[in-house]
Amino acid sequence: MAVKYELIKQCKQSGARLGRVHTPHGVIETPTFMPVGTQATVKTMSPEELKTMDAQIILSNTYHLFLRPGHETVRNAGGLHKFMNWDRPILTDSGGFQVFSLSEMRKITEEGVHFRSHLNGDKKFLSPEVAMEIQNALGSDIMMAFDECPPFPAEHEYVKKSLERTTRWAERCLQAHARPEDQGLFAIVQGGMYKDLRIQSANDLTSMDFPGYAIGGLSVGEPKHLMYDVLDYTVPILPANKPRYLMGVGSPDALIEGAIRGIDMFDCVLPTRIARNGTTMTSQGRLVIRNAKYAEDFSPLDPECSCYTCTNYSRAYIRHLIKADEIFGMRLTTYHNLHFLLQLMRDVRQAIMDDRLLDFRDSFFTSYGLFDNEKGF
Amino acid sequence: MAVKYELIKQCKQSGARLGRVHTPHGVIETPTFMPVGTQATVKTMSPEELKTMDAQIILSNTYHLFLRPGHETVRNAGGLHKFMNWDRPILTDSGGFQVFSLSEMRKITEEGVHFRSHLNGDKKFLSPEVAMEIQNALGSDIMMAFDECPPFPAEHEYVKKSLERTTRWAERCLQAHARPEDQGLFAIVQGGMYKDLRIQSANDLTSMDFPGYAIGGLSVGEPKHLMYDVLDYTVPILPANKPRYLMGVGSPDALIEGAIRGIDMFDCVLPTRIARNGTTMTSQGRLVIRNAKYAEDFSPLDPECSCYTCTNYSRAYIRHLIKADEIFGMRLTTYHNLHFLLQLMRDVRQAIMDDRLLDFRDSFFTSYGLFDNEKGF
Repeated sequence: MAVKYELIKQCKQSGARLGRVHTPHGVIETPTFMPVGTQATVKTMSPEELKTMDAQIILSNTYHLFLRPGHETVRNAGGLHKFMNWDRPILTDSGGFQVFSLSEMRKITEEGVHFRSHLNGDKKFLSPEVAMEIQNALGSDIMMAFDECPPFPAEHEYVKKSLERTTRWAERCLQAHARPEDQGLFAIVQGGMYKDLRIQSANDLTSMDFPGYAIGGLSVGEPKHLMYDVLDYTVPILPANKPRYLMGVGSPDALIEGAIRGIDMFDCVLPTRIARNGTTMTSQGRLVIRNAKYAEDFSPLDPECSCYTCTNYSRAYIRHLIKADEIFGMRLTTYHNLHFLLQLMRDVRQAIMDDRLLDFRDSFFTSYGLFDNEKGF
Repeated sequence: MAVKYELIKQCKQSGARLGRVHTPHGVIETPTFMPVGTQATVKTMSPEELKTMDAQIILSNTYHLFLRPGHETVRNAGGLHKFMNWDRPILTDSGGFQVFSLSEMRKITEEGVHFRSHLNGDKKFLSPEVAMEIQNALGSDIMMAFDECPPFPAEHEYVKKSLERTTRWAERCLQAHARPEDQGLFAIVQGGMYKDLRIQSANDLTSMDFPGYAIGGLSVGEPKHLMYDVLDYTVPILPANKPRYLMGVGSPDALIEGAIRGIDMFDCVLPTRIARNGTTMTSQGRLVIRNAKYAEDFSPLDPECSCYTCTNYSRAYIRHLIKADEIFGMRLTTYHNLHFLLQLMRDVRQAIMDDRLLDFRDSFFTSYGLFDNEKGF
């Protein structure tokens, strides 16, 4: 099996897991955050920069690479790692989420999804078999099963039909996956905010032998306490000897709360997307660098941060660059935000090691100002 | 005097000069090309990247920094070097060229130029004294006198009046310059394409003791042979013991032809501007990476290039990034183009050392395809 989970220890205070995920391109220490490189690049960053901030695994996107440049081009390049000059692990999502959030004129059948490209309107088709073919061509270490991600809110009846189809699609993915020795295929638990459906989905999928399990369909607009409720009753059903991946989550508080609930892997465009507009994450909470009060503030973004940006540049300079639409400003804020989340995950892992993750959460939330809407995400 | 020129040798074949310009922030080997960092950043690049390609000096812009973030902010930051984290030499131009090319509702008087900001329409005023005050606040190693750059073509009468005012402004700059021990002030020879006026301007300015002389008002749309004619009769008037700077020139052929005519310093936005649109300079000439023929071309941009981009990435990947509007694509093409010109100048310096710059020019032009419009700039 291409992907294996190794449990190191559980936090005696919180129950969170410290572990390792072994993949063909190296070992990932968990809990981990995965920077998102949608189009075979983590926006504004070089692979070397991602390594200096110790990113261990990045995510890329089946839907986007299928449309452009096309998975055959990536295959001909020698696979995604070689194409983008990244020799550490890569996870590719299946395209399910993007088909439902980005594309136009979707038609869902049992066979798959007909849609029009959001780039040029071309007719396209994705199915479990096509999603596997694409991801096999990309050569990612971790592949995701093709799923439907229902919107929030959605009716119980619709969500039930949808998750049952997603389960049948997962089975077809397992059948169609051509390189199980090289690439680990994760299934995605759906079920919306309905406890009975989440349990049904988790039970059905864990009856098949996937090397890892994701929880999808969260962080789609619901209140955070609903997301935490879903984790509370879903995670215990997932096998303890497989990695658990909470999709689309990247706010600092949710990363900690997810780890406490037994999640090993997270991804989100949040840190990179907000960075390009000048919003940064700091130990004192959110900092919007465009604000006039930073015009002559020559201190670093986050005085407690040791990253490249905070070591070398002032708030005043970064504000100037962002206001002047200078790309280097987006690089500096992106670097800082990713470093901030990766440092947070290092701190979370250390806190698990020391059996004090609940204490860490409380002190982080006090400093970060979780309950202050001005500062949260 | 803050800036001194040291002649190492002249090429016996071409007459080109190999030299060094000594500045408060270090020594520049000449002939040199200066990457342009208009708004206190060389677009898309980090200071470290500029150093790895061995950029020795960069240019920044009085007009832009005056409008945003304001020179007082830069002064309060500790000067431009500290503000932008660049500890090598910086040259700032005077704002003259930008006032005449970018701003709106200009009114030129003997005192200076009233104009409206291209950013927000605010009323602003630049004069020799204000340009010195700004550049003294920025703390650049080399400052430029405030000049008027007439358009091409322009009437003899207008150009004559304009250059005479520029000469009077240069004298006022010399008087107003508050930090001559820390910053070297260069005068700018104008005179359009008129031999008598260029000679008049050069004679008048060299009768004053500037530490360096620039030739302005070229590369403004005139045919290249006209520019070379101007250099042929203007450069010999400039003092041999001072650096000579040809403003706004950055095409590979003009850099070589300029060096042959005794120019020591060049700057241009060309390599960075075209890079962001996917046009690159290679040893075989211009390469437009968006072209469909590169979709599955897994060779480097320039097989003869040793830069970061060409060492690690394929044409197919760079094409994908540029077509997908990914910033990392612009970083890769910008890095390559700047490296290409800096490598060209290293080659030029070596050819001068070896007394073979004319031979070098001929073989470069053969490979680069100067006379092929498809490939030139």
